[in-house]
Amino acid sequence: MNGNRFGRLFQVTTYGESHGPSMGCTVSGCPAGLELSEEDLQRELDRRKPGQSKITTSRGEPDAVSIESGIQDGYTTGTPIGLTIENKDARSGKYEPFITAPRPSHGDFTYSAKFGTRNWGGGGRSSARETVNWVAAGAIAKKLLSQEGIEIAAHVCQIGDIEAPEVPFDEIRERVDETDVRCADLDTAERMQERIEEYQREGDSIGGGIYFEARGVPVGLGAPRFDSLSARLGQAMMAVPAATAFEFGLGREAREYAGTDRNDEWEFSEAQRPSDASGDKRESGAGGTPTPTPADNDHGGIQGGISSGEPIYGEVSLHAPTSIPAEQQTVDWETGEVIDDAQVIGRHDPVLPPRGVPVVEAMLALTLVDFMLLSGRLNPDRVDDDPGEYDTDYHPSNPRTE
Amino acid sequence: MNGNRFGRLFQVTTYGESHGPSMGCTVSGCPAGLELSEEDLQRELDRRKPGQSKITTSRGEPDAVSIESGIQDGYTTGTPIGLTIENKDARSGKYEPFITAPRPSHGDFTYSAKFGTRNWGGGGRSSARETVNWVAAGAIAKKLLSQEGIEIAAHVCQIGDIEAPEVPFDEIRERVDETDVRCADLDTAERMQERIEEYQREGDSIGGGIYFEARGVPVGLGAPRFDSLSARLGQAMMAVPAATAFEFGLGREAREYAGTDRNDEWEFSEAQRPSDASGDKRESGAGGTPTPTPADNDHGGIQGGISSGEPIYGEVSLHAPTSIPAEQQTVDWETGEVIDDAQVIGRHDPVLPPRGVPVVEAMLALTLVDFMLLSGRLNPDRVDDDPGEYDTDYHPSNPRTE
Amino acid sequence: MNGNRFGRLFQVTTYGESHGPSMGCTVSGCPAGLELSEEDLQRELDRRKPGQSKITTSRGEPDAVSIESGIQDGYTTGTPIGLTIENKDARSGKYEPFITAPRPSHGDFTYSAKFGTRNWGGGGRSSARETVNWVAAGAIAKKLLSQEGIEIAAHVCQIGDIEAPEVPFDEIRERVDETDVRCADLDTAERMQERIEEYQREGDSIGGGIYFEARGVPVGLGAPRFDSLSARLGQAMMAVPAATAFEFGLGREAREYAGTDRNDEWEFSEAQRPSDASGDKRESGAGGTPTPTPADNDHGGIQGGISSGEPIYGEVSLHAPTSIPAEQQTVDWETGEVIDDAQVIGRHDPVLPPRGVPVVEAMLALTLVDFMLLSGRLNPDRVDDDPGEYDTDYHPSNPRTE
Amino acid sequence: MNGNRFGRLFQVTTYGESHGPSMGCTVSGCPAGLELSEEDLQRELDRRKPGQSKITTSRGEPDAVSIESGIQDGYTTGTPIGLTIENKDARSGKYEPFITAPRPSHGDFTYSAKFGTRNWGGGGRSSARETVNWVAAGAIAKKLLSQEGIEIAAHVCQIGDIEAPEVPFDEIRERVDETDVRCADLDTAERMQERIEEYQREGDSIGGGIYFEARGVPVGLGAPRFDSLSARLGQAMMAVPAATAFEFGLGREAREYAGTDRNDEWEFSEAQRPSDASGDKRESGAGGTPTPTPADNDHGGIQGGISSGEPIYGEVSLHAPTSIPAEQQTVDWETGEVIDDAQVIGRHDPVLPPRGVPVVEAMLALTLVDFMLLSGRLNPDRVDDDPGEYDTDYHPSNPRTE
Repeated sequence: MNGNRFGRLFQVTTYGESHGPSMGCTVSGCPAGLELSEEDLQRELDRRKPGQSKITTSRGEPDAVSIESGIQDGYTTGTPIGLTIENKDARSGKYEPFITAPRPSHGDFTYSAKFGTRNWGGGGRSSARETVNWVAAGAIAKKLLSQEGIEIAAHVCQIGDIEAPEVPFDEIRERVDETDVRCADLDTAERMQERIEEYQREGDSIGGGIYFEARGVPVGLGAPRFDSLSARLGQAMMAVPAATAFEFGLGREAREYAGTDRNDEWEFSEAQRPSDASGDKRESGAGGTPTPTPADNDHGGIQGGISSGEPIYGEVSLHAPTSIPAEQQTVDWETGEVIDDAQVIGRHDPVLPPRGVPVVEAMLALTLVDFMLLSGRLNPDRVDDDPGEYDTDYHPSNPRTE
Repeated sequence: MNGNRFGRLFQVTTYGESHGPSMGCTVSGCPAGLELSEEDLQRELDRRKPGQSKITTSRGEPDAVSIESGIQDGYTTGTPIGLTIENKDARSGKYEPFITAPRPSHGDFTYSAKFGTRNWGGGGRSSARETVNWVAAGAIAKKLLSQEGIEIAAHVCQIGDIEAPEVPFDEIRERVDETDVRCADLDTAERMQERIEEYQREGDSIGGGIYFEARGVPVGLGAPRFDSLSARLGQAMMAVPAATAFEFGLGREAREYAGTDRNDEWEFSEAQRPSDASGDKRESGAGGTPTPTPADNDHGGIQGGISSGEPIYGEVSLHAPTSIPAEQQTVDWETGEVIDDAQVIGRHDPVLPPRGVPVVEAMLALTLVDFMLLSGRLNPDRVDDDPGEYDTDYHPSNPRTE
Repeated sequence: MNGNRFGRLFQVTTYGESHGPSMGCTVSGCPAGLELSEEDLQRELDRRKPGQSKITTSRGEPDAVSIESGIQDGYTTGTPIGLTIENKDARSGKYEPFITAPRPSHGDFTYSAKFGTRNWGGGGRSSARETVNWVAAGAIAKKLLSQEGIEIAAHVCQIGDIEAPEVPFDEIRERVDETDVRCADLDTAERMQERIEEYQREGDSIGGGIYFEARGVPVGLGAPRFDSLSARLGQAMMAVPAATAFEFGLGREAREYAGTDRNDEWEFSEAQRPSDASGDKRESGAGGTPTPTPADNDHGGIQGGISSGEPIYGEVSLHAPTSIPAEQQTVDWETGEVIDDAQVIGRHDPVLPPRGVPVVEAMLALTLVDFMLLSGRLNPDRVDDDPGEYDTDYHPSNPRTE
Repeated sequence: MNGNRFGRLFQVTTYGESHGPSMGCTVSGCPAGLELSEEDLQRELDRRKPGQSKITTSRGEPDAVSIESGIQDGYTTGTPIGLTIENKDARSGKYEPFITAPRPSHGDFTYSAKFGTRNWGGGGRSSARETVNWVAAGAIAKKLLSQEGIEIAAHVCQIGDIEAPEVPFDEIRERVDETDVRCADLDTAERMQERIEEYQREGDSIGGGIYFEARGVPVGLGAPRFDSLSARLGQAMMAVPAATAFEFGLGREAREYAGTDRNDEWEFSEAQRPSDASGDKRESGAGGTPTPTPADNDHGGIQGGISSGEPIYGEVSLHAPTSIPAEQQTVDWETGEVIDDAQVIGRHDPVLPPRGVPVVEAMLALTLVDFMLLSGRLNPDRVDDDPGEYDTDYHPSNPRTE
C-alpha cells in the first residue's frame, strides 16, 4: 500500500532516504538452507553503486551491506533477513534551494502535495538511491534462482538514438560489466559512451532502454488473469525509477504483426533447448514422449500469463535523468517567486540505464522467485529438501552435526 | 496470488470460464451510499459484449448482469456487491480437437502443464470472456470516480500499421463508440475497419493499440516506490489479455529525449485547467496563492510515482488474436501426432482493441479508485460524507426516513 | 480489509445478505485434481442449515449449492471455484420495526453508524446466515486435508452451566451428529437439550462452547510470530459470529499452571501415535533414529507458533443469541421514541453452538489448508503430484485420456 | 505469511533474533505530520526491557532505539520509519546443550523440524525478545491514537491463583507502572509479587493474565465478518508469546449468560460518557437529537464486529515461562540420548505478564490504528489535515516556513 513492500511469498520491505543515516531492507520468505554471505550481496551492490565511472554520480558511497539476522553458520534459517547499508556521503546543502521550489519533473512537488512535507535532502525517499535495497534483496533471489537453474541477464540496449543489435544471452552475461555503459555489444557501448559524454558536457542528460532475459524458467510458472507473469513483471518493472514503458516479447511492435506472423506453432522437440541446459526440471509428457515446444518465441516466454519454458525477455524504457545543470524554470510556492535559472548542481548521473541494469535484474529475479515459491517448485521452508520430507536433522553447517 | 483478485481497498474477485454456467464477480470496498443499478453496469457491458458488429465474434451473449447483494433501496450499503452474468451461448464442440493439441500461442499448453488439466471449452479460464467481470466491476469504479470529478476515456489509436492522430480528450469521450472500431478519429476508424476486414477475409488477425487518459485526478494520488501509480497501472494494464506493452507519458519514445526536452518546467497558473473543471478538489497553496503547475505534460501526469494533477495518459499494445482460421501446425501430446493443418474455426474476433477499450477503461478506473480510497480522499465507509462525521442518520433513500 | 475474504493462498471471498437473492462464495487457490461434486459440499451445508430440529430456527432454506466454475470432468482445475446458494425463504416484514430502532446487542446500530445505511432484512450482512459460505468453502478444505491425513472434529462442550466431560477424538467424529445439540457425549447432550428448551420456552436464549480438535497435522506447520498457528486460529475463530473467547491447549486455565506442570517433557517414541495413523508424512530424524515426541500435550499441538505433530485442540465460546422474544428496551433514532417492549419475533435459534459446530470445523479446516499450502506440503498447482514434476499428461478423468 | 508483518495500512515489518547483532522494525503507513522522537519510543521500550526488577531476567539490554528514516525536522514524513535496536548482552553459551536436545515446550523442536536449522542462541527468532519491535512500533500507534482521543491501558489481572479485583480505567493508567508486577491494584500486586518469588525460589515459573481496555474508540470502527474488530484483535493477541486464550467482553463466561442477561438494551443519553471525554468525535444523530447508547457494556464495545463507542475490553492469558531451572527430561535427536536432568539456566523471567503489559498494549494500539486508517478517520497521508484538503504548504516544522 505504502510502496515499501514487494513480493507475496518472497517479501521485501524497505526503508531509507537518500540522505538519512541508513538504507535498510528486510527479506522474508527466503527458505532456510541457502548459503549466504555479505559478499554475495556486495557483488551486486558494487554494480549499482555510485562513483564507479565517469558517467555516474561522484557521490562516494561504499554501499557496504550488513546482514543483521536470518543466518546461522553461514546458511539462511528461514527467518527474516535484516539488511542495512549506511549512507556515508550525503551532502544536503545543494538541495536547500529546492525545498519549496520544486525541481522540474522530480517528485518534489508531488511528495509535498501528498504528505505536506518531505525528506528533501538528495531527493529523500524518491531518490533512486533507494534501489540499493532492491539490489541487495535481488541478490538473494538470484542466488536461489541460480540453484534452480534459472539465470538472468540484462544489458543496455539503447541510449538516445543509438540502439544495440541483438546480443545472445550468454554474451550478455559475459560482457555486460565490461564497459561503463553496460551494453554487451562492445562497439555500440563505445558509441553510447561518447553520446552520453556529449550530453553530459552540455549539462544535459539522455534516456535509454534496458533489455532483460531469463532462461531456465520452468513451464507452468505464473498465474491466470490479474496475477499473470506479464502483469506482475509489469508492476515490477514500472516501479523502476524513471521507467516509462514495459514490453515483453514483441512488445509495442506486436501491433503491426498479423496472427499468422506472431503465432508460434507447436512442434515436438527432444533436442536440448537453451533453457534445458540451464537446468530446467521440466519432465517430458511420459517416459520418452516428446514435449510440445513452440517453434519460435515471439510470445516472449509467456502464454496465457504462464511461462511456456521458452526464455522470458523484454525491455524497459527509462527517461533521461531529471537532475541537470542546465538552467530551467521553477517557482517557489512559499515566496511566490518565479526562478528561471534553476540549476540542479548536485552529483548526478547523466543517464540511468548503466546503473539500472542490476536494478532491472533484481526486479526480474524478485518476481520469478516469488512465482517459484507460489508454484511450490521452491520449498518455502527449506531449499535443499522436497516439501513433505521433514526431519530434525540439522543442516550440515551446524556445528553440532559436523 | 491466484489471479482472480484485483485491488487493495477496492477489491474485485472473479470466477468463471468461457463455457461454464456463469461468470461472477464480487466487489468489496465500495463505500455505502452510491446510487447503483444493473443499468449502470449494463451500459458498460454492452460496449464489451460479443456480436456487436461484424468485426467481433458472433457468439450471442446478452451479458445480462444481476446484482446479488450490497444494495438497499438503490444505494450501495458498503457490503460486498455480488455480480453474476450467465453464459448463454457456449458451443464447446469446436474445441475438442485442441484438448491435447494446443492452439498456437494460446494458454492451452501452459494451463495444462501447470494444472495437469484445464477447462478447455472456449479457452476456459484463459478466455478474454473473463473480462466481462472486469468491465462490470470497472463500471462501479467509474461511477465513483465520476462523482469525484475524475473522468476516463480510451480509444483505439492503432490497428496494424494504421495510426490515429492525437485526439482531444473530450472528442474521445464523445466519439469513441460511434464506430465499430472504436477509434475516435473517424477517418482513421474507417481505414482501420477496412484493414481489419482484409485480415479477416484471409482467415488472419491483426494487432493494435489503445490510448487511455484520465482527467481530474487530484494531486497527490499514488505512492512512492513499489506502489507507484505507474507500477500499479503497469500491473493493471499488463493483465489485459494479449497486452504486450504498457507505456505512459512519452513511453518508449522517452529513450530518445534529452533531459532538457522531457523535463516539464514549473510555472504558476491561476487559470482553470481541464482537471479543475472536472471537480478537482485541490486547494491552492494558501489563500489566493497560485499553485505550481507543470508547463507541459511530457511526464504523463505522474512524478515520483504520484499524480501531478495533470492528465494521466498512456498506451497499451495488444497482439493479434491467436485464434485464426488459417492453417497452422500443432502437435498432440497424447497421440504424438503432428498436425499441420489445424484451424481454429470457432467464433473469434479478428482484432482485439475495439472490444478492449472498455476493458482498458475498467482497469484504469479500478486502479484509480483504489488509490482514491488509499489516500483517504474517498471515505471508505460512505461516499457522501467526510470521514469523521459519523451518525446514524439513514441514507435518504431509506423508506423510514422518506 | 472489508471482511469478506479469508485465507492467504487458499482464499475464500464471500458476498450475500440474509434476505438477498443469493449467498455466494469464490474459492481460489484450491489445487487442481481434487475430485469434487456438489454433494461433497451439500453434506456439510446440511449440518448447518436452518430448520433441522426444534432448537434451530424454522426458516425453510434448502441451502442447495451450485458450483459455477473451477471443475472439469468432476475434478478441480486450479481455477476459482464459484459457489452460489439461493435464499428461498426470506420474510423481511418482521424486521421493519427495527430499521431505525436497533435490536439490543445486534449489529444494527453499529452497521448503520458505520455505513449510514444497512441491509436490514434478517440482519442483512451481519446475519449468521452468511456462514453458509464458510461451510461451503470449508468442505473443500476438509476434503483436501483428509487426503493428506488430517482429520477435524468439533462438538458442543458446554451449554449454559452444563459441561460435557472429555470425549475422545474418534467418538466425537462418530457421535457429533447423533443429537440435535451436537454434543458427542450423549447423556450430556440430553441434559443440554432440556436446558435449551427451558430457555426457549421463556422466550430467552443461552450461551455455550465448542471444542475442536485436529489430528494428523504434520510437524512444522505454522509460522513464527504474527502468523503463528495460534494467531491465525485466533482470527479464524474470533470471526465466528457471537464468539467471545478463543482458547487452545490449556487455554485460560494455563494462568494457574506452574512451568513444571505445564511443560511437556520430550521422549523418544517409535510407537504409532494417532497422528501417524492418520497419514502423517513426518520422517524420523534419520534412518531408524526415533523422533522426539512430547510426553504430553498440554501445549495444544503448537509450540513457538508451529505445529508439534500432536493434536491441535481448543475451545470457542459463543454468547447467547441476541434475537429473543422476551421484551427489551430500545430507542428509535429517527423518532426519538423509547420503546420498552421490543420483541424480536422472527425465526431464531435459542442457542448457537449446535449449528456452530460445522462453522468452527470449517474455520479450522480453512486455516490448516492455508498453512499446508504455505509450507509447500500441498502442491499449490496439483494435489496429486509433487511440485517440480510437471508434465502435460492429462488428469485421468479427462475424456481424451480415458 | 512469514510471520514478520502485522497490519494492513499501518504496517509493521520486523527482523531479528535474540542473540543477533540487532533487532529491527520498519513501520510504514504512518501518516506525515506526527511529531516523533526516539524518546517517544524509548518510554515504552523501557517498560518492556529486561533487568528492570528482580522478577525479570537480568539480561542487560539498554534497548536503545534508533530512528533511521521517515522523519524530517522532528515530524514524520509519511515514508517508512526504520527502527533498529542493538543487542548488547547476548551470551549464547548456555544454549549450546539444547541445539539438538529441545527445551520442553519451547519452539526448539518445531523450528528445527520446519526449517532444518534455527538460530539457537537465546531462542533465536522464537524469543520473546522479538517483541521489542512490537513495542517500538506500538508506541507510534499509541501516539497517533492519543491525538484522536483514543487511550489504551492494560495491567496484570491474574498471577497463578491470585486474581485482581476490577480496577477503573483511569486508575489502571495511573498505577500500572507503580509496581514491578504491573497490577494496578496495589494490594493484589504485593500478593502477586510474593507468589512469583515463591515459584522463582523453587526454580519454577507461573502463568497469568492481562486485562486490556481502550477508551474513546469512535462508533463504526471495524468491519463485518472475517475482519471484525474481534477477529483482528484475536489474531493480534494470540500472537503474543505464550498466549493461550483471548477473551473480550464477558469472554468465556458468556457461555453461562442467558440472552436476557447479556443483551445490552438501548437508551438515549446526552450525558458525557467516558469515551466522549477522551475526544470521541461521534456526532449525534441530528442537531440535538440524542444518540442511541447501550445501557451496559457486556458486549465489550464490539457489536457485529464493529465498535459501539463503548470501551473495548478483554483479557489475554499467558502460560508460565517454559525456561526453568528445575530439572526436566529431554532427548537429543543427534545422539539419541535421553537427558533427564536438563536445566534451562539462562537469564529468564519467572512470569510473563509484567513485561507483557506493554506488549499487549502495543498490539491493541496497532490493531486500532489500522482500523482508524481503514475507516478513513485517520487521513493516511497527513495527520493534521482532513483528506481532500491538499496543498503544498509545508509543515510548520520545516525550516523554510518558520
